[in-house]
Formats: sequence, structure tokens, C-alpha cells
Amino acid sequence: MKKLMNRPEDYVDDMLRGIYSAHKDDVTYAAGDMRCYVSAHKHAGKVAIVTGGGTGHLPLFLGYVGEGLLDGCGVGGVFQSPSPEQIYEISKEVDGGAGVLYLYGNYTGDIMTFDMASEMCGMDGIETKSIVGADDVNSGAPEVRRGVAGIFFMYKAAGAKAAQMGSLEQVLAAAQKAKDHTRTVGFALTPCIIPEVGHANFTLAENEMAMGMGIHGEPGIWNGPLKTSRAIVEESLDTLLKDMPLSRGDEICLLVNGLGATSIEELYIMAGDAAEALADRGICVYRSFVGEFATSMEMAGASLSICRVDEEMKEWMDYPVSTPFYCQR
Amino acid sequence: MKKLMNRPEDYVDDMLRGIYSAHKDDVTYAAGDMRCYVSAHKHAGKVAIVTGGGTGHLPLFLGYVGEGLLDGCGVGGVFQSPSPEQIYEISKEVDGGAGVLYLYGNYTGDIMTFDMASEMCGMDGIETKSIVGADDVNSGAPEVRRGVAGIFFMYKAAGAKAAQMGSLEQVLAAAQKAKDHTRTVGFALTPCIIPEVGHANFTLAENEMAMGMGIHGEPGIWNGPLKTSRAIVEESLDTLLKDMPLSRGDEICLLVNGLGATSIEELYIMAGDAAEALADRGICVYRSFVGEFATSMEMAGASLSICRVDEEMKEWMDYPVSTPFYCQR
Repeated sequence: MKKLMNRPEDYVDDMLRGIYSAHKDDVTYAAGDMRCYVSAHKHAGKVAIVTGGGTGHLPLFLGYVGEGLLDGCGVGGVFQSPSPEQIYEISKEVDGGAGVLYLYGNYTGDIMTFDMASEMCGMDGIETKSIVGADDVNSGAPEVRRGVAGIFFMYKAAGAKAAQMGSLEQVLAAAQKAKDHTRTVGFALTPCIIPEVGHANFTLAENEMAMGMGIHGEPGIWNGPLKTSRAIVEESLDTLLKDMPLSRGDEICLLVNGLGATSIEELYIMAGDAAEALADRGICVYRSFVGEFATSMEMAGASLSICRVDEEMKEWMDYPVSTPFYCQR
Repeated sequence: MKKLMNRPEDYVDDMLRGIYSAHKDDVTYAAGDMRCYVSAHKHAGKVAIVTGGGTGHLPLFLGYVGEGLLDGCGVGGVFQSPSPEQIYEISKEVDGGAGVLYLYGNYTGDIMTFDMASEMCGMDGIETKSIVGADDVNSGAPEVRRGVAGIFFMYKAAGAKAAQMGSLEQVLAAAQKAKDHTRTVGFALTPCIIPEVGHANFTLAENEMAMGMGIHGEPGIWNGPLKTSRAIVEESLDTLLKDMPLSRGDEICLLVNGLGATSIEELYIMAGDAAEALADRGICVYRSFVGEFATSMEMAGASLSICRVDEEMKEWMDYPVSTPFYCQR
């Protein structure tokens, strides 16, 4: 295991110390607990949005806390859920009187955590609503799908609506609209290593890729020889468009996300291939997002997400945001 | 070699197609040559800044073309210099009548390229000045040092001064001031592979790191067992501060740069250790930059740069910028 770190058991807290030290004007923590990550800027009367999940996916999840996006994030151990108490403490801290939206990925531990936090908030008179990202097409039928990089589009939609002072129902509806129109396909080229484990829990041969692998190394739909970028793009788009059919002339936002170790150069090669393959299908890319949005530490690989957009969605996708990890003007 | 790509010989052009496709409102190219990368936004009367260098270091070099930073970039093959003709064509395109600053890394091929382009511009009546980044302390004595991630601080200073409509002399002086106050130490954990070569030209053992390795794999000052983040930080700061002594109470900007495959989590662990180790020495971090600023494709490793700042430098470092690859509000 080659990681720049100190003791494996301090991985998360050492990381958090670095983040708070680097971005002290923008973020802080609640309840004296570094894992109760909140924006340093409060907005009275605005619906607050809280996310959370395991460490190891930066900039997911905490990197989206900031202006025009989210208000707080529960930080779990590596690939582990935060606790209900942490989400509750964060909710109390960020609630601006207009309620709190819980927006996170479709994983069992996280669902239990947020449901329990919601009950605790209810007893304090803080209204909450919940919605989970579930965009990973190859992870199963719609009701059991995992949430991966496509949650970015839900953050953008809900974050914009909240910043425009929408009601809790309206912010939830914005997130739901983005969810309904978003699909993702991912693929890994190498595994990653959990610091406290010290070795990968699977291997891929030198010429092998894993189509559909999850961001915690969940098995995909096939392992086989590495394909060209263009071939991967074609297969991915076939999968995406079979699940969410689009018509010629439809517009989408495209997200080409790196899983951690894949170079930015390669992501742009895929972005170019995806734009051409979409054009061949008569689909227009309204806006492209290329970079690391949801990673799996040092895993090599990428994911492609598409989000169908209408005029309202375009406005949300273009809405300016600024966090220590992500800025869009 | 596990890369998301098509034919190795198309690596650079496929990447550029992706970049132009994703960011068509912001960047374009001159002279019908995709490797003559220029901003889509021209500013009459402003000093233009042109950079350039080999492909494989994104967001360096072209990623810094945009508002508040640079105006054009010559794109070479992987780890190869662009041609003088390309820099000349870019210069003609971006010149706003106030002259052009060439700001690039201290590599022999690049120096020849920019010097010849400067002569060609002179015959057209376009005034140019040149300055090279040379921040990599472990690469040798000051006059032969290579430029690495610390060039970011030169871009920030010169870009801000140019945006404030400084003269060519003033923009050059801003770059020189940032250069004089910037130092970098880098270290690699794994090599990277040039697509058309197909294999790494050196290896590091499973527990080994290379202190001082350059971003093209130039040999460093020692190879040995991987140290902890805190130990690497201490050694790096000792090297940096021996070369550029600072006094208690001095303020710096800190740049923790990932070389490509290293996770964002690890970079923040180092950033936290660096902030503490600097505080122990009485040095105050005015602003931190953490992420991928100058990479070597899928090389694992990182670099630490420090830039001493006074009030003028702080203003330049805080100046808002927006490019397709980097945004700072």
C-alpha cells in the first residue's frame, strides 16, 4: 500500500485537519466533532441541504458544501456511514428555519443513519425530507440502484433551488427532477486499498477492466480485456440510453468523472469520444463537466453520467457555485 | 499500460478534441492548429500572457488559459515542446497591442521554442518578454532548476497584474516577484507511461519513493522506503527553507499538488501536516491551494510549494480567476 499518510487509523481525522486548516474561512464543524462538517456561512430562511457518507470519495461528499450547493455533511470512516447523532447535530446547526433536505446515496447504512436523524430532528420541530441518489444503472433494478457520481446533478438542482429561496417541497422536487433524468455507468481499471486493511480486496489483471464496478469495489457486470475509450463510451451510452431513452434533439449535461488515479488527459479523451458518439445519436450536449467529482481514493477508472435538461434544469446546472473543492462561475 | 484512450499516436489530438468540445465557449485555437490553444475572449489593450510545454501535465499548461490568468498556450506532444511557429501564431492571435509575456518552464526545448518565436514576433512588431519558472529546488542550482508546480504562483501574479492593465514591464515584474519568492519540492511514488512508448522507463519498488523526481521522471536526490506524510513534509520544508530562509511571522501561500494518481484525501493529509509543521516554525499560511495543479499523467506522488507573500502578492493570489480547469472566486 503506497499512500501519503501517517497512521492508517488516523487517515480520516488527519485528512479533516488538513481540510479545516486549508479552508478555515469557508467550513467548520458542529458539536465539537470534526466529522460534523458544515458551511461557515449561514443563510437564514433558506432550506438547508445535508449530505453524508463514507470517506474516500473526495470531492464527494463534503466537497459540495458551499455557496449554491450544500450546507452540511456527515463524514463517515473510510467507506462507512456517519452516525445518526452526527447528522442530527449537523441538521440543528444548519437549519435556517425552512427545513432540511437530506440528499445522499442509496446505501443501507446511510439510509438507516438519515432516517434515524430525521426522527431526532422531528422531536426538535425541525422538518426534514429525504431523497437518495440511485443513478448507477449497472448496479441493478431502479429501486436498488446505488448512488454514484450522478448525485452531482441532484446537488446542483437542489442547491440552486434552495439558493433561490425555494420551499422544502420545491427543493425536494428539484432534486427529484434531476434524479429522474440522470443515469451513470462506471468502470474500474485498478482497485483501491482501504488504509486500515492495507491490501486490495480484489485484483484486475494488467490488461483487464471491470465494467459496472461500484465505488466501493462492488462487482460489476463483466471483467474483461481493456477496451478503447471509444468502445467503452459506445457500450456505456447503449446502457444509459436503453435505461433512459432519449430522442433526437434532446439536450443533456455530460459528466465524465475520474475515479481517482486516472489522468485528466484520459478523461478528456473520453469526453471527446462521448460528445461525438452522442452527436451520432442526435443528442446535443448542453454543458460538459470533466474531472474528479466522485472518486474511490486511488482507484483507476471513470464514469459517464448523463442528465437530460430542459430550460429549468439548464438554469440550475448553470447556477454559480463556490466551495473549497468546486467552483463554477 | 492501462490508459483510457484510443490509438497511442492520437493521444494528444483526441484529448484536445475533448477539451475543445467540452469548453467551446471559453477556448478555441489559432491558425487552424488545435495545438495553438487560445482563449475565446480577447482583451484589447491588455498584456497577453502565453505559456506552453509538453502534454501530460494537466491542468498545466493549457488549463490556466482563461479570465485573470493566461491568454494562450502552445501544446506539445507528450513531454515534448511545442514549435516556434505555434507560439508565433498564438502570439499574433492574442496580442492586444500591449505586448506578450512568455511565461513557461525552464526546459531546453521550450527555451529554444520561445526564443525563436520571440524573434519572429519582433519582425512583426509584436513586443515580447520572457521569464521561466525554475522552482524545483532538488533539480539543481538556481540557474539550472526545472520549473514545476510553483509556476502556478507566477501565473497568478502575472495574470492578476495583466488583468489590472499593467504594462508589459509591470507584468514581467509581477512574474519575477512570484518567481523570486517561490520554491518547490516534489516526490514520486510510482512512474507514469508515455502512451507511444507503452512502458515506464524506471520502476520503484512496492515500498519505495523517489524524493526530488521531476515531472518527466527525471531522477531525484534519493530513492528509499516510503516515509510518513509528516516525515516527508518535514524533510521537504527543511529543503525549501534552507534554499529560501524565512523568519518567524513571515506569511506564505502553500500549494500541495498531486502528480496524478494520488488521492485528494492524501493531499489533504499532507496539507494538514504542512500547516502544522510551518506553524511549528512560526510561519503563517495565508492561503492554501490543494489539488492537481501540475501532474505527470498517472504518476503517484505530490509536491509542496511555498510562495512568500506581502500585501501586493496577497492581492494577486486572491485575484478571482476562471478557466475551464481552474476557478477561484
